[in-house]
Amino acid sequence: MSDNTPPKSTWFHDALTPDLGTIHRVDEILYSGRSAYQGIEVIKTRSFGTCLVLDGKIQSSEADVFIYHEALVQPVMITHPEPRRILIAGGGEGATLREVLRHDSVDRATMVDLDRQVVSVCRHYLPSFSDGAFDDPRANLIVGDARRFVEEATDTFDVIIIDLPDPLEVGPAQLLYTREFYTAVKRRLAPGGIVSIQSESSRWYDLHAFVAIVRTIREVFSHVAPYQVHIPSFASLWGFSAASDTLKPDALSREEVDSRISERITGTLRSYDGESHIGMFSLPKHIRTAVENADTVITDDSPLFVF
Amino acid sequence: MSDNTPPKSTWFHDALTPDLGTIHRVDEILYSGRSAYQGIEVIKTRSFGTCLVLDGKIQSSEADVFIYHEALVQPVMITHPEPRRILIAGGGEGATLREVLRHDSVDRATMVDLDRQVVSVCRHYLPSFSDGAFDDPRANLIVGDARRFVEEATDTFDVIIIDLPDPLEVGPAQLLYTREFYTAVKRRLAPGGIVSIQSESSRWYDLHAFVAIVRTIREVFSHVAPYQVHIPSFASLWGFSAASDTLKPDALSREEVDSRISERITGTLRSYDGESHIGMFSLPKHIRTAVENADTVITDDSPLFVF
Amino acid sequence: MSDNTPPKSTWFHDALTPDLGTIHRVDEILYSGRSAYQGIEVIKTRSFGTCLVLDGKIQSSEADVFIYHEALVQPVMITHPEPRRILIAGGGEGATLREVLRHDSVDRATMVDLDRQVVSVCRHYLPSFSDGAFDDPRANLIVGDARRFVEEATDTFDVIIIDLPDPLEVGPAQLLYTREFYTAVKRRLAPGGIVSIQSESSRWYDLHAFVAIVRTIREVFSHVAPYQVHIPSFASLWGFSAASDTLKPDALSREEVDSRISERITGTLRSYDGESHIGMFSLPKHIRTAVENADTVITDDSPLFVF
Amino acid sequence: MSDNTPPKSTWFHDALTPDLGTIHRVDEILYSGRSAYQGIEVIKTRSFGTCLVLDGKIQSSEADVFIYHEALVQPVMITHPEPRRILIAGGGEGATLREVLRHDSVDRATMVDLDRQVVSVCRHYLPSFSDGAFDDPRANLIVGDARRFVEEATDTFDVIIIDLPDPLEVGPAQLLYTREFYTAVKRRLAPGGIVSIQSESSRWYDLHAFVAIVRTIREVFSHVAPYQVHIPSFASLWGFSAASDTLKPDALSREEVDSRISERITGTLRSYDGESHIGMFSLPKHIRTAVENADTVITDDSPLFVF
Repeated sequence: MSDNTPPKSTWFHDALTPDLGTIHRVDEILYSGRSAYQGIEVIKTRSFGTCLVLDGKIQSSEADVFIYHEALVQPVMITHPEPRRILIAGGGEGATLREVLRHDSVDRATMVDLDRQVVSVCRHYLPSFSDGAFDDPRANLIVGDARRFVEEATDTFDVIIIDLPDPLEVGPAQLLYTREFYTAVKRRLAPGGIVSIQSESSRWYDLHAFVAIVRTIREVFSHVAPYQVHIPSFASLWGFSAASDTLKPDALSREEVDSRISERITGTLRSYDGESHIGMFSLPKHIRTAVENADTVITDDSPLFVF
Repeated sequence: MSDNTPPKSTWFHDALTPDLGTIHRVDEILYSGRSAYQGIEVIKTRSFGTCLVLDGKIQSSEADVFIYHEALVQPVMITHPEPRRILIAGGGEGATLREVLRHDSVDRATMVDLDRQVVSVCRHYLPSFSDGAFDDPRANLIVGDARRFVEEATDTFDVIIIDLPDPLEVGPAQLLYTREFYTAVKRRLAPGGIVSIQSESSRWYDLHAFVAIVRTIREVFSHVAPYQVHIPSFASLWGFSAASDTLKPDALSREEVDSRISERITGTLRSYDGESHIGMFSLPKHIRTAVENADTVITDDSPLFVF
Repeated sequence: MSDNTPPKSTWFHDALTPDLGTIHRVDEILYSGRSAYQGIEVIKTRSFGTCLVLDGKIQSSEADVFIYHEALVQPVMITHPEPRRILIAGGGEGATLREVLRHDSVDRATMVDLDRQVVSVCRHYLPSFSDGAFDDPRANLIVGDARRFVEEATDTFDVIIIDLPDPLEVGPAQLLYTREFYTAVKRRLAPGGIVSIQSESSRWYDLHAFVAIVRTIREVFSHVAPYQVHIPSFASLWGFSAASDTLKPDALSREEVDSRISERITGTLRSYDGESHIGMFSLPKHIRTAVENADTVITDDSPLFVF
Repeated sequence: MSDNTPPKSTWFHDALTPDLGTIHRVDEILYSGRSAYQGIEVIKTRSFGTCLVLDGKIQSSEADVFIYHEALVQPVMITHPEPRRILIAGGGEGATLREVLRHDSVDRATMVDLDRQVVSVCRHYLPSFSDGAFDDPRANLIVGDARRFVEEATDTFDVIIIDLPDPLEVGPAQLLYTREFYTAVKRRLAPGGIVSIQSESSRWYDLHAFVAIVRTIREVFSHVAPYQVHIPSFASLWGFSAASDTLKPDALSREEVDSRISERITGTLRSYDGESHIGMFSLPKHIRTAVENADTVITDDSPLFVF
């Protein structure tokens, strides 16, 4: 059978774990460079369109950027009764910012990203990701370290969204997944505020990072709701956490979510609505069991690494 | 960075689409053969343990066999008030049969699979998959064509479970995904009965098979509830359909599912419970939209093929 | 060991046989298109620099273009006492033409290539391959079918060089490796002339094409000298044949070759000299044995295909 | 085109350089283990039959073991007028020993290999490689370090054959490619003796190891003749060196080699004869130039590593 023979074409190899990888047919390499912090590539794949690749891993793709970013942003924005001041830690592509600014209630969205080059590469090669968000007068881009920002700033925010790259062993994000970091984040949260946190893969055979992140956040916030969506270009379920001392997104009904969306959101969401909300927060038993059994707390002294 | 160099080891290459594949580190090739119908391999992967491979595609793995088979079997079994006579079309590994026989209400479970060699290879190399189910006095294994069986049999069944391999262009399953097949299945359904149907990948970039199957089943049954779970060894969400003229699994509450499980099931389920049930049947908006917009009906004259 | 994990980067996959492939790290895809005859790509690999790829197979690379083209051209040019009129069948990159025009004795070099697009893509992206040869007043480029040309032309040539792509099952070169073609080529050869023929891989485990080509040429010419060089970007030895009714390149001494090179060639050859000549024509015993045992004659009715 | 899609089957990935790899279709993994010194695997590939793999790299294959071992052993054995006492450093598979023992002149062949497990795995899974050689009364297997042996032994040998694995950064062979090692080897050489040395890949784009080894041996012996053959399972030319203070294998004629073979060798050689000998020692100009320009001498303080 000819489909059992070696292919003749160009493929991007992404590694999910040391024992599992994906290969994506590539039509074009649009950009390939290195900032002070990480390798940056923009490639055009056949399956997922143009993709941002950091340190050799796909971070987002044209085909499913809406799934990831609606999931990261909208559940907490919809849960908060009136989100006005927003902080985004990371978020280089600008898609998180774009999702935040769909809400008319927002007065100011401050985004703190370390790597100016990621921001400009994305604005140039993936303009639809931010879709003009950086030019919105409510947007405030700060190039700097998110850890330092939350430790030194004095402002508070209604919603904080943590959208950081994987904590690789040789990458810039190691101290942005620790109890100390989440404690500093909480100090920047206004009363009644809520946080959304990118929490790594929630695929069954590789849950160690997800469950440790959820466990660590639970040291800091009294209510933490882990949730997940499937991101096709990651070939994986992806985990998030909503954390607050007062708000409970997993207590919202389908109808409540749908009615808040129609009252508050400019434009149309493609992936997130009331039924999606229920689905995201209803984790299968085997994942919930792993989350409940987690016993690792990530600290500055003992940080988390992913492959 | 050394993780950017070619690996030195043995990998199983699985193809999800013509433009996307996965590679799995292999420790052992336990069996490699060919039946009258298909290529059969049993390989031991580092990520997912021992896997059954048919015509070059992973069908099930030790690591997540429970996720797939609980999802295929339990929602319809739990929805039915008292499932006694069960038909399984396909199901060669025996794991579907094992899940069915957990229910004390079952009097007889008839399994019709074309390929005796798959059944015996799995009993030998993957005995935990069936876990003795073939020796249960209620089990009735028929080696034969499922299409012919449902067309010629006269018995009826409370629950019918369609657990067939992908309809490959050169495989044996092409006429087992058509309107004519589902119509014949329905004739074998007892009043008040319900059907569960393996419905192919429900990943966002590759929904054509899933939405066509759901659309086709809707031609035949008055209530069809599509649902999905994530199967890690497929690197993919996987779709299923529950179909009935009377029963509605998606109307069950979390509590109802949990209470029926504790009343009826022997042993402990690892993946399926009330919250999982809610999660499975709550599809994200972008998938629901694709399902609603589907307009292809699969027929004997115009069958479905997947890659 | 980290070099056993999946790589994270972009790779061109080339297939040598159905059971063996190579993967090349890619830095850039410079061109990707399709002419009326074949897929054409120009990629920049880390190991071999910019490469021309036709129908998914590397045809030539910056790093070793000199090895292939000196081997194809110089042995027959040096063997002929005074090559004046030269015919090149194929040769799209222009590197064959460049090697021919190094000889001051040449009055006219006629090149017949089917695919104008290959010629222009190479002139644009790989200008060093032809290095101005197309602008030499002695060069005469004809876009057309080489088979038809040799059948219809009336001119004769001192040296004919057959530099054609692989005879793929769906490519344009099937009838350019047959006894009928070589017979037509011979009719275009001036008395005392000699032919050089690209003769496919001469690697030990995959000799079928090479030995069939040599055997077929022996049906037509009284003296055929097979020879080979190693082409790194093909990950393979590559076979050639020198054919004549009068001339015997394998009878030249090292010293004779060196002295003819210094008398006749403009510029410096990098790969070919007297010692190289001796090495190319001294085939190892196992290859000679396979050549002697070949019994397939390629004809229009029974053409050769390679993978 | 279907041959452009990802394959569905199991492949061994071998890495030639950080930027280039090969993939081999695998039918069976016969053995997979780890000795005190290295990873050891025996795999059955479709192209080359059963292969020995050390630390993730193919070392020898059923299909071409004769090419490598005839090339390593026979040129120096044939060059020596009457080889009686032979030393093999390394040579775990037993194929070097088998080639040596074809010569009736041999009284005693001493083989010193570090890794007893490689020897026994090969005897069990690849018995044709040694073909009974270990049971020959002239064979003397010593399990130990070759460096220590040549430094401490007092015997001398007519022919010494250095058949060691690649000097990997984390492997056992680093100090077996240095000037100090070759100096110690020379002390074990009887007057009029000759040495044959496995000298790593001689492919054009990756010559650094080969040219450094040749350059280093030239520090120690007055006549060094580098030579090469193509090893298909390495997808590469492979380099060797013959070194002596008195003997010159590259001065032998084709006829002399053929006549010595017929006088001295038991059984039939498949790859080596007079013409092969001439071919091996006639390096192409670009390789000779690189060898002449080499300026790195490998020493214990500054050892050589290959990828």
